[in-house]
Amino acid sequence: MALTPRLVRACRGEEVDRTPAWLMRQAGRYLPEYRKVREAHSLLDICADAELTSKVTLQPLERFDLDAAIIFADILLPLVPMGIDLDFVPGKGPVIQNPIQSPSDVEALKPFDPRDHLTPTLEAITSVRTQVNQDTAVIGFAGAPFTLASYLIEGAPTKNFGRVKSFMSNEPEAFLALMTKLREVSGRWLTAQAEAGADALQLFDTWAGWLNPITYEKQVMEHSRFVFHNLKGTGCPTIHFAVGAPHLIELLSQVGSDVLGVDWRLSIDEAWSRFSMDCAIQGNLDPTALLGSEQHIRRAVIDVMQRVDQRPGHIFNLGHGMLPQTPPHSVTIAMDALRSYEATAA
Amino acid sequence: MALTPRLVRACRGEEVDRTPAWLMRQAGRYLPEYRKVREAHSLLDICADAELTSKVTLQPLERFDLDAAIIFADILLPLVPMGIDLDFVPGKGPVIQNPIQSPSDVEALKPFDPRDHLTPTLEAITSVRTQVNQDTAVIGFAGAPFTLASYLIEGAPTKNFGRVKSFMSNEPEAFLALMTKLREVSGRWLTAQAEAGADALQLFDTWAGWLNPITYEKQVMEHSRFVFHNLKGTGCPTIHFAVGAPHLIELLSQVGSDVLGVDWRLSIDEAWSRFSMDCAIQGNLDPTALLGSEQHIRRAVIDVMQRVDQRPGHIFNLGHGMLPQTPPHSVTIAMDALRSYEATAA
Repeated sequence: MALTPRLVRACRGEEVDRTPAWLMRQAGRYLPEYRKVREAHSLLDICADAELTSKVTLQPLERFDLDAAIIFADILLPLVPMGIDLDFVPGKGPVIQNPIQSPSDVEALKPFDPRDHLTPTLEAITSVRTQVNQDTAVIGFAGAPFTLASYLIEGAPTKNFGRVKSFMSNEPEAFLALMTKLREVSGRWLTAQAEAGADALQLFDTWAGWLNPITYEKQVMEHSRFVFHNLKGTGCPTIHFAVGAPHLIELLSQVGSDVLGVDWRLSIDEAWSRFSMDCAIQGNLDPTALLGSEQHIRRAVIDVMQRVDQRPGHIFNLGHGMLPQTPPHSVTIAMDALRSYEATAA
Repeated sequence: MALTPRLVRACRGEEVDRTPAWLMRQAGRYLPEYRKVREAHSLLDICADAELTSKVTLQPLERFDLDAAIIFADILLPLVPMGIDLDFVPGKGPVIQNPIQSPSDVEALKPFDPRDHLTPTLEAITSVRTQVNQDTAVIGFAGAPFTLASYLIEGAPTKNFGRVKSFMSNEPEAFLALMTKLREVSGRWLTAQAEAGADALQLFDTWAGWLNPITYEKQVMEHSRFVFHNLKGTGCPTIHFAVGAPHLIELLSQVGSDVLGVDWRLSIDEAWSRFSMDCAIQGNLDPTALLGSEQHIRRAVIDVMQRVDQRPGHIFNLGHGMLPQTPPHSVTIAMDALRSYEATAA
């Protein structure tokens, strides 16, 4: 009989033999073996190739004692087949040549079918699932409607989200139409990943923290809720994550995911105590902790674990993505600190 | 007998004839008359010239019915005479050629004497004070120790504050030495501005929101508290401001300022209810609201005012600096909405 991966059990709040751990951006630029792949292939090249995607996805699991592989992809991938001209500019980030500026731009977006467009990612999920242990989870992910809308409207990295916020206030109907399209995109993309073999699904609402609770509740929340509601049929547990959002934590915990991921701005026990619905928690080591000394890393990991105090329903993770300048050995130290703590606490 | 500016009275929680209003970055790039000055003069040029500084400071007061002039300057100015090679790179922001990387870099910082180095700003304060009405306040300002330390250590705009955070954990003694120097800088610079004629003093801890409450309390808070404590002798009321800091609001309100400025992430009534010390509040219109329609702007202003509900101790302001793309006419609308609301509510 197939084992249920321990991350899946923790998502459901069940007791597990050890705290499942993975790290956002665990596959990425901080790893020399990843940078080697990138010497010959762009990010979009890797995503268009199932074999490269699998390879890069598995790199961190070869080095570290992790409990999940998150498929290597980008939340903006589904926008490309919708007619968006996307590029990743070194040192700048994603840039969209044809951002959404008007209601007609929203109408012009093409429908999204993951099986037509993103088969390499799906094939890689299936392949990775066969290559990892049965108690290791494969995580699929997608951008949340608001975060996708932000990228589409801003077009380039922003410090203030002025374009998307003024679109929300000046064009509320077009914004609603956009969110209605994007929730289908997020939902279909995650469903396809579940069908391809993903064990758990994470929705990244990276930029939600730039909204106040009133705007979030009025123009965003129902669309993320729609996504989670429609994922129930997949049988996969779901994780919801936003960064810089302590002021939204009560609302974010009501959107219908099994797990809420929190950044490092609040201690994990304080964050968990603010959930207005009982659900599991993922987090929340500050990624900059991995730039510190061995002693500092160990102390930071133990602090998270002591605050959780063995309460079921905890997935150990960073509070935001791994920084490119992280020494890989620091991850080894963090994982050792976690496992040693558990061995002592048990 | 000289009138006390209404902003000063509101800082002290006293009743006022109307809500004092000013806007962070009210003098700046959104004004065509400011851009005209910038065609011939760099930011540092303006700051080195008392007459230009006064001119630019007064520009918004000629257009809008504001209750304060904030002296035109930059929080990083005091770093230049300390030996820091500072430049403002168009499209990028402030860049420091010789950032702090080691304990010896902290030791090498030269002492700061505002009267030696920043007399144009001080002369401009004195001049502006003579040029505005007696019930209009002149506001002086400085960067808080942590925010100055962040710029000094990061050297360039950052998304994650990895350098400053790892310096804090890896070099705690050097960080303490740096904060001890910088609190003297913030304090001396604000005291000099008070002596030159400023009526109120704002301390910008722009980046404090990137810290968790434990780190803020352990390595930052006492230094900001030192600054406010030492300003008591000036007789000027003080304003403390941080952005993206709803998770620190309880701590920020205990640092010893007369007013806490809050951004737009929480409604102003919700933010005020979280203060752990009774003090006045400044804020909190989302600057992106000024990119919306007239109806949207009016609604947003009225929402702030309704939530305050005439409670004494409110200074109307934005929740962060004015965006460069703001149409000046939108500020006229916002000020009219504020004054019309008060006329009706009275």
